[in-house]
Amino acid sequence: MPERRDFSRDHRWLSLNTATVRKQGDLAAIIEACARLGIRAIDPWRDQVATIGLSRAAKLTRDAGLELSGYCRGGMFAADAAHRAEMRDDNRRAVDEAKALNAPCLVLVAGGLPQYSRPGSAPSKDIIAVRRQVEDALADLLDYASAAEMPLALEPLHPCYAADRACINTIAQALDICDRLDPGRTGRIGIALDVYHTWWDPQLLPQIARAGKQRLLAFHVCDWMVPTTDILNDRGMMGDGVIDIPSIRAAVEAEGFAGYAEIEIFSNTWWGRPMQEVLKTCIARHRSVV
Amino acid sequence: MPERRDFSRDHRWLSLNTATVRKQGDLAAIIEACARLGIRAIDPWRDQVATIGLSRAAKLTRDAGLELSGYCRGGMFAADAAHRAEMRDDNRRAVDEAKALNAPCLVLVAGGLPQYSRPGSAPSKDIIAVRRQVEDALADLLDYASAAEMPLALEPLHPCYAADRACINTIAQALDICDRLDPGRTGRIGIALDVYHTWWDPQLLPQIARAGKQRLLAFHVCDWMVPTTDILNDRGMMGDGVIDIPSIRAAVEAEGFAGYAEIEIFSNTWWGRPMQEVLKTCIARHRSVV
Repeated sequence: MPERRDFSRDHRWLSLNTATVRKQGDLAAIIEACARLGIRAIDPWRDQVATIGLSRAAKLTRDAGLELSGYCRGGMFAADAAHRAEMRDDNRRAVDEAKALNAPCLVLVAGGLPQYSRPGSAPSKDIIAVRRQVEDALADLLDYASAAEMPLALEPLHPCYAADRACINTIAQALDICDRLDPGRTGRIGIALDVYHTWWDPQLLPQIARAGKQRLLAFHVCDWMVPTTDILNDRGMMGDGVIDIPSIRAAVEAEGFAGYAEIEIFSNTWWGRPMQEVLKTCIARHRSVV
Repeated sequence: MPERRDFSRDHRWLSLNTATVRKQGDLAAIIEACARLGIRAIDPWRDQVATIGLSRAAKLTRDAGLELSGYCRGGMFAADAAHRAEMRDDNRRAVDEAKALNAPCLVLVAGGLPQYSRPGSAPSKDIIAVRRQVEDALADLLDYASAAEMPLALEPLHPCYAADRACINTIAQALDICDRLDPGRTGRIGIALDVYHTWWDPQLLPQIARAGKQRLLAFHVCDWMVPTTDILNDRGMMGDGVIDIPSIRAAVEAEGFAGYAEIEIFSNTWWGRPMQEVLKTCIARHRSVV
């Protein structure tokens, strides 16, 4: 395994994706808890920001001295003609919000088939055509985001979400799109690499090497549970599942990635525990098994 | 879409994977029901054969005039040293049984990490090493199967099963293995292509073309439900989900595949309905949406 940063002594490189404790409190409460525990960065979700208001979220984050490791999320690009303007405007607002919050990138989830991506859209089973539409919409958003100097981090999702959440399902597929839209590797677009979505991929290591530092905009961790009892909300705390997280982090850092390891856990189990307990467990596992 | 065979007039190209109705009756009852409904082929499972006995299964199949479209299944190759001989012997028996039943191929599911593939094996998170072990074990079995003239059909499974069922998860990965073990494309090894496991793959169509007739040993159909409420046992009846089955069948047949469209549905819903109703629904859907 290549060298990787030593996380065992502190948690300075831990970022909390705020969905991890979204049922235990609002964004203000999460920010306060993070500050108290010495967590230095967060990646908030749009709905959490909207609930307390964008300016208040920006002020609380700033006052607490928190950085952002990303902003979740734009995308859901697949839409029928009647929903396309709404989709475009929604994504532009996401860029503006990311900018207001001083995020380093806007995380993008591509969306699956149009009937799930933008409810009310005419249904389709043509995933190949949907992927072309997604790329066109992404190209359009990239123009807007570039003008705003907001990098876009396309996140390939696990193939089990291909129908309803994201038709971009492998790192290679995401990088192919990045290469077509930004052949110069300018930093305007790259990927968010989540171990949950990519650990199974036979092309994981070569594609991380292909991505390189310019395309690795975010690194997310959690774990894959066996059995997985809920296809969406049974992600594991790092160390409780089967993913060899240290090896993947080593590969990412071998390319020069030096940012946060962002913890993002959607879990009915962990949402049922007190925020303080979840965050302390995150810190302990960050030091021992990430 | 390329031309495909006309399935609308009859169900001569329907094969029933007998797991589809495994809770409604034993293999003898399934064979009788298939014969009564004019189903011409089945793909039985080892446990179902074992329950009624190999010679009786062979006789009943023969007497009913049924062909096999495959035999399910060998594999589960990942094992620690203490379980390797058991794994090898088990797989050789599977080849012998397939031969006794006059199956055209033995379907192989690779197995996931050793602790799940062969329970009792020492646990591992090193999926890369496990994949190497799987290929070594497969190479060994291929020698045995070739001597018995039994083709092996490696089935890539959906990435959601990478940990516990199969660490071979894409068509490209399976074909890479086939090419290494059988560069001459002799027909001794190929793949079983199941729409459930592969529909999401951005490389689906090019890899079907790469496989060609020599590597396409079996074609399985069912559907992907949204939402999927159980990661193992919520497969859909064809037409009830999001998979564009006709397009995939067209691509497979464009390569010269002219065998059965085998229906394999693991579903708590369909296991809860009478066998006759399930089989009649299979026939109707085979004619209308496959």
